[in-house]
Amino acid sequence: MRPLYFENGVLRLIDQTKLPESTVWHECCSYDQVAKAIKDMIIRGAPAIGAAAAYGTVLGMSAIKTKDKTFFFDEVKRIADEIKNTRPTAVNLFWAVDRIVDKAYENREESIEKIIEIALAEAQRIDEEDVKSNRKIGEFGGELIHSGDTILTHCNAGSLATCDYGTALGMVRAAHDAGKQVHVFACETRPFLQGARLTAYELMKDGIPVTVICDNMAGYFMYTQQISCCIVGADRIVSNGDTANKIGTYSIAVLAKENNIPFYVAAPVSTIDFRICCGSRIPIEERDPHEVTHIRGCRIVPDGVNVRNPAFDVTPNRYITAIITDMGILYPPFSKSIQKLGERLNGGGV
Amino acid sequence: MRPLYFENGVLRLIDQTKLPESTVWHECCSYDQVAKAIKDMIIRGAPAIGAAAAYGTVLGMSAIKTKDKTFFFDEVKRIADEIKNTRPTAVNLFWAVDRIVDKAYENREESIEKIIEIALAEAQRIDEEDVKSNRKIGEFGGELIHSGDTILTHCNAGSLATCDYGTALGMVRAAHDAGKQVHVFACETRPFLQGARLTAYELMKDGIPVTVICDNMAGYFMYTQQISCCIVGADRIVSNGDTANKIGTYSIAVLAKENNIPFYVAAPVSTIDFRICCGSRIPIEERDPHEVTHIRGCRIVPDGVNVRNPAFDVTPNRYITAIITDMGILYPPFSKSIQKLGERLNGGGV
Repeated sequence: MRPLYFENGVLRLIDQTKLPESTVWHECCSYDQVAKAIKDMIIRGAPAIGAAAAYGTVLGMSAIKTKDKTFFFDEVKRIADEIKNTRPTAVNLFWAVDRIVDKAYENREESIEKIIEIALAEAQRIDEEDVKSNRKIGEFGGELIHSGDTILTHCNAGSLATCDYGTALGMVRAAHDAGKQVHVFACETRPFLQGARLTAYELMKDGIPVTVICDNMAGYFMYTQQISCCIVGADRIVSNGDTANKIGTYSIAVLAKENNIPFYVAAPVSTIDFRICCGSRIPIEERDPHEVTHIRGCRIVPDGVNVRNPAFDVTPNRYITAIITDMGILYPPFSKSIQKLGERLNGGGV
Repeated sequence: MRPLYFENGVLRLIDQTKLPESTVWHECCSYDQVAKAIKDMIIRGAPAIGAAAAYGTVLGMSAIKTKDKTFFFDEVKRIADEIKNTRPTAVNLFWAVDRIVDKAYENREESIEKIIEIALAEAQRIDEEDVKSNRKIGEFGGELIHSGDTILTHCNAGSLATCDYGTALGMVRAAHDAGKQVHVFACETRPFLQGARLTAYELMKDGIPVTVICDNMAGYFMYTQQISCCIVGADRIVSNGDTANKIGTYSIAVLAKENNIPFYVAAPVSTIDFRICCGSRIPIEERDPHEVTHIRGCRIVPDGVNVRNPAFDVTPNRYITAIITDMGILYPPFSKSIQKLGERLNGGGV
């Protein structure tokens, strides 16, 4: 299930704020509509945000009315910055927008029309590569899942969070497709309920057994030995392996370690931020309190009460058993394995 | 703020399913109405359930139409069993009902009318003693709170969970009343939202600063050093100190230990079950899936999805820094300190 399509100058996004009640396709014809859709979480999930942002940058480029290249590139920079300013934590957003802008700049000798054409081809490449990456993650990571396993996951790192197939749920799908009996425990993931709404929805659609639990129940099911492993996605992995992901991930990782349960992070290499040394440097987005005070429109707290709404947390590398990427599985010490991966990427000319 | 009043043969309960939107007093004129109110969580919180159950038993006794004592006591036993069958985890329920039945039986030589009168006086004693107990818990435990502390709590262990003042929140109130600057972080406590709805409500009413967070954020605030200590109530503490409390408590305790944050349990001695050796023997209630699938009437999961809803978990004694009771503070090793407390109770003829 793809959460986004680009056709004839329109980016269509499945509105993830409205799932599972209704399947509404949200159309973006301009870069600022894409920026707003990212901000409002109509599209969410690090890899999906990356692809949407790439298409959004192309939409922005296409609308620049000029034949002056200097003005054109100034405008591209402004548009890129605006899109990058929507959400601070997931690195795929910056990675994808930069990739489009860099590609355009590399081809600055071409006509503006041609540059836009090249940029669009690059956005499509990001989109297609992501699907392939997830298949690879599934291939590598599926091996870590055994028949009979009950897998705890948090948030939605499925096809809806990517361009298709999913990262954490890509691993689950690969295991399921290989005929292994798996059962997923999906933490509901307050405040936005990605687990209850999106993970449950896409797994049910695929016929993969899923049970929804409240976030605070994860520890209970681990302690009572009902969980075989935990698999989550990532919004940003830094060079020592510290990983930012949906708020609540850190708690699950600590509980997994305490109960000797493997804790896996599944993410494409585009989620790795090689420039940052450790998790404390990752900016953590704090979102609108309304997401906490209201659930599906119903107020759940007394009027006027103070709330906090950090959208992500950082899981220190010591809690992570392995990071499953599209280029293979990384094991601790992550500083070393990630450095080696970086060398492979540079050596491979990526 | 008292959550229950008994007057003229009517038990009035503040309907805790409707707070904070509306303050509705729910009237119970018979024991089965009380049983239903306990089951439906119109009244909740271990000590408050105990007091309500005590009054409910008296209501049941008063309605027995007989002059035959054997029949009367058979009926009392049946009524008591029915009330005790409402919820399995909180021990105060059994403790309070048994106390009423035992008192009645001790006075079996009296007239039935007199026995009922004595039973009512005993229920009122349970009610009054609970308020005094909470004041004592506040007195002992308030000392553990320092000015400037930010206290994380889970669920509602406040006046609404007791006959007044609260256990965990009794400690907070005592510190606040002593002029200490305290700030409470209240975990919203899915699925029933006792933290978001009840703890926030009663602290705001008392002018104690409170911030509501989602349950999965607790770890983040501990890891980022924004929490000074955790204080929770208890539904049953067994003889080695293992403690059953609202689902999610175990996770908070593990996270507190991992982050070197004191984790306190506040409960009256009536919450201690001296007959059970360890936490694995405590029955854990599994409640209606509807509590998880719907929030304030809004469905949040796809139709037909499987959910689990354990209402409590057990925190092993090794995660508990101290247990604050109305008879003093218990420190590890809890097997010893609880045994000593039991000896004091027996020695004191309680």
